[in-house]
Amino acid sequence: MTLIDSLQNGDRLALTRLLTQVENDSAAGRAGLAEIFRHTGRGHLIGITGAPGTGKSSLVNQLALHYRKQGKRVAIIAVDPSSPFTGGAVLGDRVRMRDLAGDAGVFIRSMAARGSLGGLAQTTAAFAQVFDAAGFEIVMIETVGAGQNEVDIARLAHTTVVVEAPGLGDDIQAIKAGILEIADVLVVNKADRPGVENTEKALKSMLELGHPMRHIFQHHGRAMQVESPRDDSSALWIPPIRRTVALEGRGVSELVESIAAHAAHLHVSGEWATREQARLERETEALLARALMSHFQQDVAEAQIESVMGDVYKKNISPWEAVQELMRLHSQKEQA
Amino acid sequence: MTLIDSLQNGDRLALTRLLTQVENDSAAGRAGLAEIFRHTGRGHLIGITGAPGTGKSSLVNQLALHYRKQGKRVAIIAVDPSSPFTGGAVLGDRVRMRDLAGDAGVFIRSMAARGSLGGLAQTTAAFAQVFDAAGFEIVMIETVGAGQNEVDIARLAHTTVVVEAPGLGDDIQAIKAGILEIADVLVVNKADRPGVENTEKALKSMLELGHPMRHIFQHHGRAMQVESPRDDSSALWIPPIRRTVALEGRGVSELVESIAAHAAHLHVSGEWATREQARLERETEALLARALMSHFQQDVAEAQIESVMGDVYKKNISPWEAVQELMRLHSQKEQA
Repeated sequence: MTLIDSLQNGDRLALTRLLTQVENDSAAGRAGLAEIFRHTGRGHLIGITGAPGTGKSSLVNQLALHYRKQGKRVAIIAVDPSSPFTGGAVLGDRVRMRDLAGDAGVFIRSMAARGSLGGLAQTTAAFAQVFDAAGFEIVMIETVGAGQNEVDIARLAHTTVVVEAPGLGDDIQAIKAGILEIADVLVVNKADRPGVENTEKALKSMLELGHPMRHIFQHHGRAMQVESPRDDSSALWIPPIRRTVALEGRGVSELVESIAAHAAHLHVSGEWATREQARLERETEALLARALMSHFQQDVAEAQIESVMGDVYKKNISPWEAVQELMRLHSQKEQA
Repeated sequence: MTLIDSLQNGDRLALTRLLTQVENDSAAGRAGLAEIFRHTGRGHLIGITGAPGTGKSSLVNQLALHYRKQGKRVAIIAVDPSSPFTGGAVLGDRVRMRDLAGDAGVFIRSMAARGSLGGLAQTTAAFAQVFDAAGFEIVMIETVGAGQNEVDIARLAHTTVVVEAPGLGDDIQAIKAGILEIADVLVVNKADRPGVENTEKALKSMLELGHPMRHIFQHHGRAMQVESPRDDSSALWIPPIRRTVALEGRGVSELVESIAAHAAHLHVSGEWATREQARLERETEALLARALMSHFQQDVAEAQIESVMGDVYKKNISPWEAVQELMRLHSQKEQA
């Protein structure tokens, strides 16, 4: 049986093995990714992000249960950028286990944010491809925090859901403004708590304030079209704000509707294909950068590199001049 | 007068111009960086990070005033990862203007976190070099947030100060645990507020919990030495916790002492040179990666790249196979 057959037949052992190979960036992992690639492109990649305390993990669980009732297979990639000695991830996993354990249509994989950011985004993207090819219609990517991580993952997801909650303090609102730019759907979770109206109002005014900026940001280089809304109408998507109480499952089906509406919008506007292509382009470029670097390292001897770097450490030459010298050594070797 | 003479003579116009050239990554900027490079290496790069609401900007101002009294020139690079439509940065700048305006020994530059993360960290590093060469003994790099940004900037700074404050809620503690790993000095600001003991206690227990991990993390691959503290004593630095009330200037001189003690520790342990070299290596590698990519783009025609990418979009070949094909086209051209 081929790898793709095993995956699509629900062989969890084959799936786990491939994910580990991909995470380790082994030759087998790369070969596996190449083999499954033509089977990707059907899954809906949904990014779910929000600060700790918003109840984001519970919401992901509820969404998973809801999609399961629709008969869809669900994968969850939980990206945890916090340090290994915090209990957050473990706790979240335990809640998950209780709700979703024993369901063969659900697969959960945690990933620590150790190592380089580029590496993390690349591995997440590769994991999403594996789940997609394996036939998971829904791939949820859950991230904690407010930073470049979330932006990178938003670029990976088709639909990005940003989760807020009342009572987390005004102080941390500022940091979340950046996150609003990437939101396709906004959720106020824990909506049974006092202050829900204020949170929703704050989100609304931030959205209104942010919308023109957001629009220009997304259509960088197409500013002319922004001034002519009729020509650009298909690209307009105003992020809806949904209230949920994840612990009781309230508001979850409405949220699922908003997510589905966003997917429909992406298809109708042609944005789905655009996002897919942009993603593949970034992925190929990242792989190319690595291939160019390892090609360079094969050509130029380590002793030569060390000698050039020694001159940089002694401040005889600047890093920029060092690169010119290294490129010269590289060319010599190529032409030899 | 040469560029470096102008900078070291306090020509603010020349300084501003060079910073803009560097930010725009222009040829003049690169030439300028190469010219000043041999004059770098004397400034103390201090990273200051913490969530919004911790009073971090006020603390940076107080530190600046304190260093000015010591006769040191002070540069502040304020990196704001929040979106352009939040008022945070502007507000902070206004406070700054009032305290530090008109002092020729202080230079403040804000930087928005737009664009790629690699780009941001690289530009911050280049700015720090410019200030360093221009004779600023103290270069403070202020960042907001809790994520990869801070880790990248900590790798750039000699000393990283993490600022906390009482009463920001337990919910956001989890996200900060990751930040503790990069802290060389911890500050509980707003220490006149209720809850200061709890915040300090939480930091202490997180530090104790985190310390072994932190140690292994910093000395990756040298795990044997960790078990033998006597051989490794010079590398041990337990981050001190300082209380401050920035608005009243309380605790600032003690904080300055801790920062100076850390610098002394870096010099004695040899870690200062190690960090400098690691930084130069990363910078050179990033520049090399860009040079390799632009070399590739010169060799391989855009039409060829588009044709290969078209096959990827159609899922005829995987990104990995595409890279192998692109590298083949590249080699052909090199050998021609």
